[in-house]
Amino acid sequence: MASFKGHALPGSFFLLIGIWWSLKYPFRHLSQKGKSRKRNLYQKIEIIEAGIRLAFAIIGMLAEQFTPEGDGPKLHLYNDQDWIKLMNWQHTTMYLMYGLSGLMDMLTILFPDVPLGLDRLVMALSAITEGILFYYHVHNRPPLDQHIHFFLLFPLFGGAISIFIEVFLRDNIVLELFRTTLIITHGSWFWQVGFVLYPPFGSPTWDETSHSNIMFITMCFCWHYIVSMVIVAINYSLTYGLINRMKRSQGEENIGIQKLTSSYNSQQALLNDTDEE
Amino acid sequence: MASFKGHALPGSFFLLIGIWWSLKYPFRHLSQKGKSRKRNLYQKIEIIEAGIRLAFAIIGMLAEQFTPEGDGPKLHLYNDQDWIKLMNWQHTTMYLMYGLSGLMDMLTILFPDVPLGLDRLVMALSAITEGILFYYHVHNRPPLDQHIHFFLLFPLFGGAISIFIEVFLRDNIVLELFRTTLIITHGSWFWQVGFVLYPPFGSPTWDETSHSNIMFITMCFCWHYIVSMVIVAINYSLTYGLINRMKRSQGEENIGIQKLTSSYNSQQALLNDTDEE
Amino acid sequence: MASFKGHALPGSFFLLIGIWWSLKYPFRHLSQKGKSRKRNLYQKIEIIEAGIRLAFAIIGMLAEQFTPEGDGPKLHLYNDQDWIKLMNWQHTTMYLMYGLSGLMDMLTILFPDVPLGLDRLVMALSAITEGILFYYHVHNRPPLDQHIHFFLLFPLFGGAISIFIEVFLRDNIVLELFRTTLIITHGSWFWQVGFVLYPPFGSPTWDETSHSNIMFITMCFCWHYIVSMVIVAINYSLTYGLINRMKRSQGEENIGIQKLTSSYNSQQALLNDTDEE
Amino acid sequence: MASFKGHALPGSFFLLIGIWWSLKYPFRHLSQKGKSRKRNLYQKIEIIEAGIRLAFAIIGMLAEQFTPEGDGPKLHLYNDQDWIKLMNWQHTTMYLMYGLSGLMDMLTILFPDVPLGLDRLVMALSAITEGILFYYHVHNRPPLDQHIHFFLLFPLFGGAISIFIEVFLRDNIVLELFRTTLIITHGSWFWQVGFVLYPPFGSPTWDETSHSNIMFITMCFCWHYIVSMVIVAINYSLTYGLINRMKRSQGEENIGIQKLTSSYNSQQALLNDTDEE
Repeated sequence: MASFKGHALPGSFFLLIGIWWSLKYPFRHLSQKGKSRKRNLYQKIEIIEAGIRLAFAIIGMLAEQFTPEGDGPKLHLYNDQDWIKLMNWQHTTMYLMYGLSGLMDMLTILFPDVPLGLDRLVMALSAITEGILFYYHVHNRPPLDQHIHFFLLFPLFGGAISIFIEVFLRDNIVLELFRTTLIITHGSWFWQVGFVLYPPFGSPTWDETSHSNIMFITMCFCWHYIVSMVIVAINYSLTYGLINRMKRSQGEENIGIQKLTSSYNSQQALLNDTDEE
Repeated sequence: MASFKGHALPGSFFLLIGIWWSLKYPFRHLSQKGKSRKRNLYQKIEIIEAGIRLAFAIIGMLAEQFTPEGDGPKLHLYNDQDWIKLMNWQHTTMYLMYGLSGLMDMLTILFPDVPLGLDRLVMALSAITEGILFYYHVHNRPPLDQHIHFFLLFPLFGGAISIFIEVFLRDNIVLELFRTTLIITHGSWFWQVGFVLYPPFGSPTWDETSHSNIMFITMCFCWHYIVSMVIVAINYSLTYGLINRMKRSQGEENIGIQKLTSSYNSQQALLNDTDEE
Repeated sequence: MASFKGHALPGSFFLLIGIWWSLKYPFRHLSQKGKSRKRNLYQKIEIIEAGIRLAFAIIGMLAEQFTPEGDGPKLHLYNDQDWIKLMNWQHTTMYLMYGLSGLMDMLTILFPDVPLGLDRLVMALSAITEGILFYYHVHNRPPLDQHIHFFLLFPLFGGAISIFIEVFLRDNIVLELFRTTLIITHGSWFWQVGFVLYPPFGSPTWDETSHSNIMFITMCFCWHYIVSMVIVAINYSLTYGLINRMKRSQGEENIGIQKLTSSYNSQQALLNDTDEE
Repeated sequence: MASFKGHALPGSFFLLIGIWWSLKYPFRHLSQKGKSRKRNLYQKIEIIEAGIRLAFAIIGMLAEQFTPEGDGPKLHLYNDQDWIKLMNWQHTTMYLMYGLSGLMDMLTILFPDVPLGLDRLVMALSAITEGILFYYHVHNRPPLDQHIHFFLLFPLFGGAISIFIEVFLRDNIVLELFRTTLIITHGSWFWQVGFVLYPPFGSPTWDETSHSNIMFITMCFCWHYIVSMVIVAINYSLTYGLINRMKRSQGEENIGIQKLTSSYNSQQALLNDTDEE
């Protein structure tokens, strides 16, 4: 969908997942010190996340094939003369691969016989797939169009390398936060591409051959990345504050109850459990 | 051999090895938990596999040099004016390197004094060799021809990196399954190249300069990879089902025999051994 | 700032940090064998270093925006027709990212809840950011200009890879010395760029299209790197000599005191502590 | 030295070191199982090897600067108009860096305070330096000249990656044998370049624009690598045979002596020591 909406949709998907990760990973990292009881809870969350990612992919595929405006290929690939709507088919393929990544995540959590790490491998491969598709996407286009699409490749290939390392170094918080900043940048950059190539609010179009526009776009990408780092840093701090408050209030409660009576210990343990979950 | 057969032959070799690996690695991974008794059996299987890969390479070399149609160089490299049939010689070199990889596998298993990991190194190098040969293969050809051959390089260099990591992380099931999907894609893509460049059943030739054909081929490669992942997933599940059934039937047998008599234990152990092998 | 000063300023920053590292890392490596008491001291030093790097970045940003000659954009990004002074804005972005790296270092040391390794990740990313900015910086320029700027990329991307490995292999002296040589080369090369493109003392300008100038620059870069290795080697030796002298004089003192009296041991330990810190 | 000799000299240096390594590394790997007594002997050998590599570098530098034919720059870098003999200066730089690598090896062995791994780092960097110099060496030359020089880069950058891994995985026999095959190929390829570009025995010159010559050279490089693997394999086997014979003869001696008398045990131990060293 070569339109503003066609870039805003995947952009929003990536942004949402990125924001969610920027809360999930700090929370798990900061809260799990010395506790292994909540494993069950986390597994449920991971399955829900994987399901949502799968749903995003299916929505994306349907939008590419059956857009209301009627310009989708509607699953037809070939007519007598030529291929039909290859652009939409390429985007469908991209969503399909991300859908498989969500599915793989679910399988890895549900079935202990699926080797751990395959989920990360498929996630890395789905980033590479998007990268390959975009790389050959923009041949024969104006310089600015090529240049702005090209910056989608940095988070994709950088992310693929980082996620591939996670196959071997699972649950490494540094790699997870790196991945989070990359996916936020990737999402916000889709919006940037939409704003530049298909100005939505009747704003004037950009000169797609101007060298200074290209220079600005280069710098603008760095700013996107810096903002995504700031977002992750803020969410990390918020999570940290929240967890500390939870611990303190729970600690005070415990102390109060211990003062009243210490014979209800087993009951208390159960209550605590419920609180935490 | 610039013909349909010349691409179908190596394609079939890679596909066969890929399908075999998609059964071998899951089986070993799922069955070996806590058992080290079958090591001997696996070594025999590995030697046979290496022998078959060596045989494939020899068949390939002979086919390139002495094709029945008589267009092979028949081991002549140079005549008075020019090099003879360099294309066939390049393919021969490719097969030779894969043959050496098979040989190295045999040596590593047979002689404990050959350092473990050399087999993986030579396998990675044989993929790089094929990559180098193909990279310089397609200069001065039509765009579609270049593009479609270019995608042979992704599984080759991706595979070389992955196999090189296996030098240090041997028997890692994630890397092994990754290698399996890559070799299946590599094999099926050889068939695709054959169908596109040398349509076998009198079907019309493709327009080798069309941009939309190039876009389709890009996407088609992703589909090949997705199908190869699905094949590996199915074979993994089948293996899992088979192993579970084997365990259960064996378990029932054991229980039944234990009810009858427990004095034949040593005899039973021998029978079990024979069953498993 | 496309001027001699505009290259000398960042060059000096990088050189100063490089020289400082060439003393800090050997000192820490050679003195810490079997001692963990000085951890507190090193943390203070690290915080000061991070603060200085942050200050350098702020100075750089101010210089780019509000140069006394009045050619900075003064925080204006856009006027009616075009972007304003994009070159200065790009340099500002570069300094900003290095400032964030300094800030991240401070946070990692001050707050134990910030995951160790994030400081190295941000440092690697700031090198990559500079690399991306410079890569697209020099389009449409004379060959020599492109070539000489291009060599800024070797230490940047080489350094980024090396620093990224430090995320996982922290406090590895080989990687730290490698990083030190790269940053010294990076700094001295900025000076070289300034001397070649904007000869400061009225010396004749270089022919920016001459092939032999390009060949000389290639070799000259290797010489810069060799000199930076020699500087690090000399500083390593000096540090080694200094630490040995310190140990010996301290040892003699200890022996002398032990001869006089052994009843002041606890007092002596306190004195030693003060000496060392 | 753009001549046959100028390529044969470095080629011979690399070949000699490669052949030596193909004997040293197998010998150390096969003989050291369970013995740490010979460490002293190996250190002496390593120092001699590093010294010889340093000598090679000095010979190379002198040959480039003061060739008997009188076409060296004789340490003059610049005259009134232009740079003098930059080609020779570039080769001098290459030898200088390899000389530093030899020096670093000596320092690492002699001084335990020099961090282990720095020798490998400098070796990797000297390969990268040669790679950078050659990459910019061959601009504006005929296609075959560029192509044949380009293949010098594969062993250089492949080797640099492999040697960089050795910083962390020291004494890994697989990486050492890989390095050995690469340096042999590098050396033999220098000879090949000499034979193709400066045919020594009055043989006809090659057509430097012919596509089939380029195709042959691509394949020829693979053959060089295969031959270097075969050489390493043969030397590995020879070393294995030699060590087994040594062990057996020593074993028989021991048994014979034990039959005669077992009271000379302490004396015998001394004799064995002398034998082995």
